[in-house]
Amino acid sequence: MSSDRLIYLPLGGAGEIGMNAYVYGWGKPGKERLILVDLGVTFPDMDTSPGVNLIMPDMTWLEDNAERLEAIFITHAHEDHVGAVGRLAHRLNAPIYARPFTAYHAKRKLEEAGQSPNDVTVVQPYPDVIDAGPFKVSFLPLSHSIPESSGLVIDTPAGRLVHTGDFKLDETPVLGDAFDPALWAEIAKPRIKALICDSTNVFSTKPGRSEAEVGPELVKLLQNQPGMVAATTFASNVARVKQLAEAGVAAGRSVCLLGRSMRRMIQAGVESGVLSSGFPATIPPEDARDVPRENLMLIVTGSQGERRAASAQLSRGKYLGLSMAEGDTFLFSSKTIPGNERGVIRIMNAYSEMGVDIVAEDDKYHVSGHANRPDIERVHKILNPEIVIPMHGEHRHLREHARLATAGGRASMVVINGAMCDLTGVAPHVVEHVEADRIYLDGDILIGALDGVVRDRIRLALNGHVIVNVIVEGNEPLGEPWVEIMGLPETGKSRASLVEVLEEDLGQFLMRAADKTLRDDDKLGEELKRIARKSSQDELGRRPEVTVVVSRLE
Amino acid sequence: MSSDRLIYLPLGGAGEIGMNAYVYGWGKPGKERLILVDLGVTFPDMDTSPGVNLIMPDMTWLEDNAERLEAIFITHAHEDHVGAVGRLAHRLNAPIYARPFTAYHAKRKLEEAGQSPNDVTVVQPYPDVIDAGPFKVSFLPLSHSIPESSGLVIDTPAGRLVHTGDFKLDETPVLGDAFDPALWAEIAKPRIKALICDSTNVFSTKPGRSEAEVGPELVKLLQNQPGMVAATTFASNVARVKQLAEAGVAAGRSVCLLGRSMRRMIQAGVESGVLSSGFPATIPPEDARDVPRENLMLIVTGSQGERRAASAQLSRGKYLGLSMAEGDTFLFSSKTIPGNERGVIRIMNAYSEMGVDIVAEDDKYHVSGHANRPDIERVHKILNPEIVIPMHGEHRHLREHARLATAGGRASMVVINGAMCDLTGVAPHVVEHVEADRIYLDGDILIGALDGVVRDRIRLALNGHVIVNVIVEGNEPLGEPWVEIMGLPETGKSRASLVEVLEEDLGQFLMRAADKTLRDDDKLGEELKRIARKSSQDELGRRPEVTVVVSRLE
Repeated sequence: MSSDRLIYLPLGGAGEIGMNAYVYGWGKPGKERLILVDLGVTFPDMDTSPGVNLIMPDMTWLEDNAERLEAIFITHAHEDHVGAVGRLAHRLNAPIYARPFTAYHAKRKLEEAGQSPNDVTVVQPYPDVIDAGPFKVSFLPLSHSIPESSGLVIDTPAGRLVHTGDFKLDETPVLGDAFDPALWAEIAKPRIKALICDSTNVFSTKPGRSEAEVGPELVKLLQNQPGMVAATTFASNVARVKQLAEAGVAAGRSVCLLGRSMRRMIQAGVESGVLSSGFPATIPPEDARDVPRENLMLIVTGSQGERRAASAQLSRGKYLGLSMAEGDTFLFSSKTIPGNERGVIRIMNAYSEMGVDIVAEDDKYHVSGHANRPDIERVHKILNPEIVIPMHGEHRHLREHARLATAGGRASMVVINGAMCDLTGVAPHVVEHVEADRIYLDGDILIGALDGVVRDRIRLALNGHVIVNVIVEGNEPLGEPWVEIMGLPETGKSRASLVEVLEEDLGQFLMRAADKTLRDDDKLGEELKRIARKSSQDELGRRPEVTVVVSRLE
Repeated sequence: MSSDRLIYLPLGGAGEIGMNAYVYGWGKPGKERLILVDLGVTFPDMDTSPGVNLIMPDMTWLEDNAERLEAIFITHAHEDHVGAVGRLAHRLNAPIYARPFTAYHAKRKLEEAGQSPNDVTVVQPYPDVIDAGPFKVSFLPLSHSIPESSGLVIDTPAGRLVHTGDFKLDETPVLGDAFDPALWAEIAKPRIKALICDSTNVFSTKPGRSEAEVGPELVKLLQNQPGMVAATTFASNVARVKQLAEAGVAAGRSVCLLGRSMRRMIQAGVESGVLSSGFPATIPPEDARDVPRENLMLIVTGSQGERRAASAQLSRGKYLGLSMAEGDTFLFSSKTIPGNERGVIRIMNAYSEMGVDIVAEDDKYHVSGHANRPDIERVHKILNPEIVIPMHGEHRHLREHARLATAGGRASMVVINGAMCDLTGVAPHVVEHVEADRIYLDGDILIGALDGVVRDRIRLALNGHVIVNVIVEGNEPLGEPWVEIMGLPETGKSRASLVEVLEEDLGQFLMRAADKTLRDDDKLGEELKRIARKSSQDELGRRPEVTVVVSRLE
């Protein structure tokens, strides 16, 4: 009989930045009792997932093993950690634990998905402990770009694990939990078996900077602006939003928050106690309209160029009765996430056309929420784990992080989504691979990323669509074939209508077609498709998607 | 009678980085004799132009005035300056002038498009002069990231213009024309009426760096690599390719060029005399397979993550019998152009999975080809023009450049695509707006960007496609409606087949439909569409594109 083992199985977040979902287990192989850390989403893009609303980890493996799942822990309220709770948590049928600010968001997600928010238990951080089967779990307060971000101290029969969640080492985070070296040292006292650690900024070679460095720069900037100032940042960065608002007030400006998530985050901060130190008074948009521009500051959503967010709306004209104008200033207190450049630049140019000045100096008005390489090394040293497993990163981040750990004399390996890693012994090793694909929220429906639905939409976008319609009675075509096109030029090389050329070519074929072909729907469809593609190729130089509808009158 | 005037009319490149095309004219309003500078393309993306092959400036205005066009000048061989020559130049019916390396490429473009390469006249630089109606034009040698890049000195009856083309101030460019302050000062001696100037790097605050700084870093890097090294850069940066090859040879490696444009550029360099200083011997891929990895260097296309280029092919596995492996190194001797991040990162992660080390430090192994802000200021000072018109930039770049010029005490204004600017007097002013949209090469067909073809493809990608087919005889539906779907989930909220639900709902409607509706194709089509959309919304939570085909048997 095999002995108990400690396993780690990322189902999302290991090999990408997004949709975090990490499973830990203890017990006999195949019978481990499990916990899940985080249940996040990632966002679609036009290149790979047009029309998709959200992307989530495929939890089929965990759903199939739901009776073994003891609990779900959510480290913080970023969408890539909590975003899938509404859609997926109820299938797992386990209690959800989170600290107040995070719990506020988890509950809202459940409510919006029509699920009960009562599954969420609000907990206090270390030294409080949650018992979850063979695991004892504590929330370790740490700093990040959202309030109440937490690592997890997970005591297992094989030793202590630390799962960092997203973190930075900030001793002056403005809001929420400061990095507390003494606390970390205390946690490290029992030997740490394994550190599962954020890898996002492993390529950033300088030590990370504190949130507190941003405030004075904002105050300085705000002092010298002649017109209205609008600033954007992630709404969830409540410390930043607070510093922006305070800088506005210090410059004698009324502050107005624009964008649903901006207002929701501040409300969550107030209700959860995170903002117990207060937040400057704000005015609603309808009052803001009457404030002289030089006395007004907007804090708006949409730092990543999202088309529907307030920053994009304002760049296109009036939004809630407010608009930017020549002499105003727009501040990006944010960094553009790779892949979002086009959207951000579109907004910058729209403001430039209005005569609005853009301020977008990453290093001055923004600091990252993730630990840089020297910070990661410092954590390795403080916690001194036997094993380091990099997580929260693309493959290149994980690999670099593993090299860093190995260079520091620790066992380490890259463990990607779907790889079940045995942490019991001295060296981690992968014991099994499980399916860990992606699922799409498409409209209101969940579909598999590999179902072909989205692949077909990409093909339609790249190739256009030809619809061929023929009516057959017995083995006789009834009338002419009928063609409709969508997403294709109306005329091709012959200068004749593409539809007419296709109808002519298909009609010629039908006249000559053998009775056998005309009686066989599949064969007839295939032939018509082939001809439509070939004629399109001749006319347009491209082969469209073709749908053939054969209507049979019998 | 109105007097002669000097006009400037950008048709592409002013308000974007790409598809450059600038018109100058002299004469009576509406009768000016014209010259065109550059005729470039820009590249499509999935967000805005899925399925499009190339984007070109809409030259309708110039085609309508082609009898007034004296000549076309191509400043250099980058695609955004020469790329549309093959498809568009023959419509303009004017001689094309370019220096040898650029002319080589212009001729190839014409040949590939089935046009005569004889329209291209190879010219020598300043002090040689080309007479073009009222203009006397000289090619001003300057440095950029491609050999033989040139500004244009354009003498007009209203004074001298300098059109910089793309440039940097590099006194040691490794290959081709160094920045020659004495030459620039000589050109500035007759008062310069207007400087039309590259704006790309106006936000870069440090002086630009020389191409010569890169070579020693490459030599250092190459000395210490245990496995095969593959390096990518723009093929057109012949000086860089040469430095890469020389660093490879210096490290005892055989050099192999991969990618069509890589080989073509070197060939162009040899044939045009640009590489008269020589290029290291290279070996073909079939020989490279037999070279020990540590003695091999590949120089490959695809620095921007292009899916079909050599770097991407190698990241997916074997390419021409060669493949990357653990211990090899892949060097990006390049900068990622904003918008291309996703493709580049995809390649980096693919290499990471193979165990290939990635080197991608912009500042060490790459320098920009464009003048930075201090360099631009230096040019303003050397040439001392009355007017500065910023070009080659997005709106934000043009605006910043105009501010810089104004701060320096010069007249300046932002002139965007389609704005005809009168440069005759002391202050530039816009006198007319002409259509200056984009056209798409779509397969082999040219279509207008606003024709709706690509908009329809985007809609298909975002919404999916439902095809409804009904047969009507008189005012009686014949049989049931028939539905096909593409790019939509097969089952919706009811867990029933979407196609069946739609067919059922549409069938119900048909049974109840009034005779009047059934006799009216448009009305019937509209109603069926409405129902298909509503049923899809109920089932899927999204409204697809719907095509209705009504077949009428009479």
